[in-house]
Amino acid sequence: MVDIKKYNNENVFAKILNGRIPCDKVFENEYVLGFKDINPQAPIHILVIPKEKFCSFKDFSKYASANILTNLMRSIGEIAEKMSLENGYRIICNTGNDGGQEVPHIHFHLLGGKKIGKIIP
Amino acid sequence: MVDIKKYNNENVFAKILNGRIPCDKVFENEYVLGFKDINPQAPIHILVIPKEKFCSFKDFSKYASANILTNLMRSIGEIAEKMSLENGYRIICNTGNDGGQEVPHIHFHLLGGKKIGKIIP
Repeated sequence: MVDIKKYNNENVFAKILNGRIPCDKVFENEYVLGFKDINPQAPIHILVIPKEKFCSFKDFSKYASANILTNLMRSIGEIAEKMSLENGYRIICNTGNDGGQEVPHIHFHLLGGKKIGKIIP
Repeated sequence: MVDIKKYNNENVFAKILNGRIPCDKVFENEYVLGFKDINPQAPIHILVIPKEKFCSFKDFSKYASANILTNLMRSIGEIAEKMSLENGYRIICNTGNDGGQEVPHIHFHLLGGKKIGKIIP
């Protein structure tokens, strides 16, 4: 179970953000980074994260600035366009244990390139 | 397949928003409405929609004001708290055909109350 109460600087996305481990980047701006999931669940599977440190959607939605919240939404839309997902896509944000969150840095999954199927398993 | 290119005022969420059909409301503010999905896929399954007319995440992320984008993110977090989803939850936004979008008014699913399971089927 990931701990989403206190930010852990050793989580894998923190290490990607500070350059300690590489990523296959598809998008970057002042606030947001987008990169390919190393274990893709669909032909296109991008992870979109804010550069600022938030454990989960819980603290992100409450404490992130309007600027960052807005930029993150717009960035996901831009990445979907850039990845040519004109047939559609699914955006998923898992929070905590019931959600199935695996890395304790807030992230949005962008999935496409095929019919994603039922809303949940 | 839903048409997400031109807003259809006869879609079910448009009818909920203008009061022509009822909903089981759990949250409302100036910009956002949250109500129970009539076909829940988990013990808690809430639909969160902006009151403004957008067909999908594609136009929403591009054309919605910063105010609305921010408010919608904060509202989802507030609804999760209100619904006591302290063990976590999944947020899903389906766009277009590949995403499995069923109603052509942008909506976010908030799912919880059990372990949601694998990220996609």
